[in-house]
Amino acid sequence: MPSPNNSVGIVTPQHVRFDAPLPLRGGATLNGFELVYESYGTLNADKSNAILICHALSGTHHVAGVYSEQDKKPGWWDNMVGPGKPIDTERFFVLGVNNIGGCHGSTGPKSLNPQTGQPYGASFPVVTVDDWVQTQLMLADYLGIERFAAVVGGSLGGMQELQWSITHPRRVANALVIAAAPKLTAQNIAFNDVARQAILTDPDFHGGDYYQHGVVPRRGLRLARMLGHITYLSDDAMGSKFGRILRSGAFGFGFDVEFEIESYLRYQGDKFAESFDANTYLLMTKALDYFDPTHHHQCSLSEALKPATADFLVVSFTTDWRFAPERSREIVKALLDNNRQLSYAEITSSHGHDAFLMVDEYYHGVVRAYLERIPL
Amino acid sequence: MPSPNNSVGIVTPQHVRFDAPLPLRGGATLNGFELVYESYGTLNADKSNAILICHALSGTHHVAGVYSEQDKKPGWWDNMVGPGKPIDTERFFVLGVNNIGGCHGSTGPKSLNPQTGQPYGASFPVVTVDDWVQTQLMLADYLGIERFAAVVGGSLGGMQELQWSITHPRRVANALVIAAAPKLTAQNIAFNDVARQAILTDPDFHGGDYYQHGVVPRRGLRLARMLGHITYLSDDAMGSKFGRILRSGAFGFGFDVEFEIESYLRYQGDKFAESFDANTYLLMTKALDYFDPTHHHQCSLSEALKPATADFLVVSFTTDWRFAPERSREIVKALLDNNRQLSYAEITSSHGHDAFLMVDEYYHGVVRAYLERIPL
Repeated sequence: MPSPNNSVGIVTPQHVRFDAPLPLRGGATLNGFELVYESYGTLNADKSNAILICHALSGTHHVAGVYSEQDKKPGWWDNMVGPGKPIDTERFFVLGVNNIGGCHGSTGPKSLNPQTGQPYGASFPVVTVDDWVQTQLMLADYLGIERFAAVVGGSLGGMQELQWSITHPRRVANALVIAAAPKLTAQNIAFNDVARQAILTDPDFHGGDYYQHGVVPRRGLRLARMLGHITYLSDDAMGSKFGRILRSGAFGFGFDVEFEIESYLRYQGDKFAESFDANTYLLMTKALDYFDPTHHHQCSLSEALKPATADFLVVSFTTDWRFAPERSREIVKALLDNNRQLSYAEITSSHGHDAFLMVDEYYHGVVRAYLERIPL
Repeated sequence: MPSPNNSVGIVTPQHVRFDAPLPLRGGATLNGFELVYESYGTLNADKSNAILICHALSGTHHVAGVYSEQDKKPGWWDNMVGPGKPIDTERFFVLGVNNIGGCHGSTGPKSLNPQTGQPYGASFPVVTVDDWVQTQLMLADYLGIERFAAVVGGSLGGMQELQWSITHPRRVANALVIAAAPKLTAQNIAFNDVARQAILTDPDFHGGDYYQHGVVPRRGLRLARMLGHITYLSDDAMGSKFGRILRSGAFGFGFDVEFEIESYLRYQGDKFAESFDANTYLLMTKALDYFDPTHHHQCSLSEALKPATADFLVVSFTTDWRFAPERSREIVKALLDNNRQLSYAEITSSHGHDAFLMVDEYYHGVVRAYLERIPL
């Protein structure tokens, strides 16, 4: 029942529980877990039209559609996923899943640990991109999907796609790696560590067990998000949107909000601190830091990507300085070293890293054309 | 008594008190103030060989030399200032001064307010680059220096130099503006605001009056400095120095220090939080945000720099992304629009913004050659 604006319409999250113990890359074991996911479109008879969307740091399983007629806020990639949209739900069965360690329904730090009846909190183990891929694989098995028509991800989601293609090449026909990087640089890690330190040193963090204290480390999470936002936007985009514009038109010579950019960042920080879980933020940034498929290959990305047999579409954005086009080019080069089928698009955009979430005619056209060529 | 390594040797800070009320740009009045300064070299008979060094965010009056034979830490620009060094104390009388609002001896938030007998704390007024130039002018008058042979500044120090040249053109013969920008961008302001919010929301900040509570907002100041450091270094420099090197050689899957870059940043943050005053940090970042000589000139830097008659040397560094070469080029263009005498050097360096504090043969050679041509 697509709505007039090509939305997938009203959607309902689904839950699945896996009871077997899950050994994690970090050495710990999770005694069973739950995944929350959404799907859009219809799985065809031979289950060959499924596309998995992997989310980024603060993303969720809620990729497209709304939860009610009144819901003003559609899923985070609603401009990309829907009937007639680049990821076309009239052809594909599209799957969004919240990763474990998350805070939107899949088992994570704020979930109750069945063994204690208390939230996991600090006891929730560190999870990695490998672990997420493993749980996504279990979901695919549960749904009977032998091979994804495509696995798609932007930013940290793109890293999950890379891991899918390396670990389970036979289960990925096409790989869309958007605004990603093969691994973080020292500067990327540095920004993550400042964000983590903001949370870890917030007196309301209580070593990660703030749930029991009836507080949340709001200050730390707010700072983390403000900082994150600076890295998601380009200097240019910030300049044209906010420049040096003053809220009141004159300097206040104090420490209240003065520049529009301050107002914007503080608002984004406050909003995020209301809704996101600080322990999840810590876990997501760690997963980013740890991701490095070259780690066991003498830093050679070509060696690391040797098992990846999917057909690739790699996309980068010119003003993205978090994961600059150079980082995507590393992936492209490594794939070329392995003589893989690939397409690469470097999209001219002023929107920085966030461009992967925005509407851009060329970008959407490339994704659409790439997916349209997949025979079903 | 120069030491073997061309140091100015043991130096002693001097103090001067100005008792007249100082009206500030922000509307407040400071009821007298004290400046701490140092000088190196000898003022010549006609007082024509004085060079003023303006410090940046965390700089001080202690530009060169040491405080004792045992002192292992020379002044912050000891590689640049000394006998036979680029800013040659055998020719020039070099003056370093701590700005008001600072925390190293000049009147600032942690100074005692004579009217209350308590530290100024939150009641210390916001100061601007204009105000600093005014107080530096008062010091020049006190020392009988009618015209500086040169005013020199890097980063925020370069902004003070620009203001000197605009407001008091007849008192500056040569202007050295290094790694500076004519005004902050939205992204620059955004980073400053995250740093300020880290301090302002630290529960130990107590609205700026933490001195009375026997605490300091160490957490906030530490985060501010960690973040600052990321913007002072280039991505490249961080990459070659730290890369993804792990302290213990293996992932720890926890939140302790793992990557060398984390260790470095936390150490820098801790060290800074031990010694710097949080209120001063707030004031310095505000002075940066406010600085905009184009503000009353319809954003035209050419118009703003029209009064500046000094001979200029502008220097930028290729990997500086805090104040990129493009920002220095704006200054150069505006000076050219006014047909001013100028030299411009864009130094190839991997060290980012911090390059202005480091030894580089070409950089030091340019400064040396520029100053050597000044007749005395």
